[in-house]
Amino acid sequence: MPYRKPPAVEDRLAAAREHLVEQATSVVAEAGWANASVTAVAAAAGMSVGSVYQHFPSKQALAVEVFRRASGHEVDVLGEVLREGSGDPVERLALGVGVFARRAMERRGLAHALLAAPAEPAVGRERLEFRRRYRAVFAEVVREGVDAGLLPRQDPEITAAALTGAIGEVLVDPLAAPAEGPEAGRLVDELVAMSLRCAGATHGTTPTIPEDSR
Amino acid sequence: MPYRKPPAVEDRLAAAREHLVEQATSVVAEAGWANASVTAVAAAAGMSVGSVYQHFPSKQALAVEVFRRASGHEVDVLGEVLREGSGDPVERLALGVGVFARRAMERRGLAHALLAAPAEPAVGRERLEFRRRYRAVFAEVVREGVDAGLLPRQDPEITAAALTGAIGEVLVDPLAAPAEGPEAGRLVDELVAMSLRCAGATHGTTPTIPEDSR
Repeated sequence: MPYRKPPAVEDRLAAAREHLVEQATSVVAEAGWANASVTAVAAAAGMSVGSVYQHFPSKQALAVEVFRRASGHEVDVLGEVLREGSGDPVERLALGVGVFARRAMERRGLAHALLAAPAEPAVGRERLEFRRRYRAVFAEVVREGVDAGLLPRQDPEITAAALTGAIGEVLVDPLAAPAEGPEAGRLVDELVAMSLRCAGATHGTTPTIPEDSR
Repeated sequence: MPYRKPPAVEDRLAAAREHLVEQATSVVAEAGWANASVTAVAAAAGMSVGSVYQHFPSKQALAVEVFRRASGHEVDVLGEVLREGSGDPVERLALGVGVFARRAMERRGLAHALLAAPAEPAVGRERLEFRRRYRAVFAEVVREGVDAGLLPRQDPEITAAALTGAIGEVLVDPLAAPAEGPEAGRLVDELVAMSLRCAGATHGTTPTIPEDSR
């Protein structure tokens, strides 16, 4: 862009940092935490190892930033669907779980890294923190459903914790269904149905559980 | 014991190793993985650091043994209740979840270490492996319940994964209910009720969810 004023040093640094975090996220998604060394990330970002250390003091600090950025985006998307999706609280719960599951299945490597893959303790601590955020958004919609008389009386915090754990566990099994095709659709349907059962919903999207069959 | 033949060297080594693993488990339960250094474990076991290394080549190897031993015991107890407890599959599921929850709440520090606390990647890998074992025992009882017509049609593997994740998540919140007293009992009741809902049970121990109220 020869005719534009060169961006300020701060802008360039911010852009470089952004590029670095994006590339590091791709490395983590493809190769896992253990293989996302500073050397590997530097190579992916087309930077020197020294430049990486200009932005992050350690591999751990970079890993924490990758985790926060990616998890923060997922919890924001989920929260938005649960709060502002269409329909009543039960329909929004079904929608939110479905959207979350599809996103995770389309980004299987990243989802596994975020939800379950063995990682250094600093990432483990972030994971516990983010699980609290997931629980908060689920608790809100469950509470709404109970208040509206659509869900039976229950402790919304416990159901929210259960949903967070249940959905994470179902999605991270490396042996689970493929990322697309009928099997993937079936997994999403089962997961939505299980989530609605878990919250005690008696209506909603429960295609796999006809009332009169086993 | 002056009149008895001294035990063979192998027996003495095995007893010392057993004592070491027990003491290490207590240190992990009280202080967490990060603080269970070889030095701390040696002090707790009344051994020299060198003796600890005679039994385990690294802190990591000792941590893995602590994890396997303690988790193995919990999954065995759960499996036994789910398979051989009294009642139909739904009643056994309620019983198993209740027993597992009470055990975890009575050993809060250990349960947190086993289920969720940030730990080195080697322990994280063991955790994934043990979650598969939990899922297998839950899947068995859910499948039995579906076959008996007590539970709606569902993918027992998915429900089992959901139960594993849900129960773990509910139990590891450091802000959750205390280890004893009415609040602890309420948490166990809620957890059992949620588990039965999750599996689609319409009978069983669901004290907190009257059908006709919200």
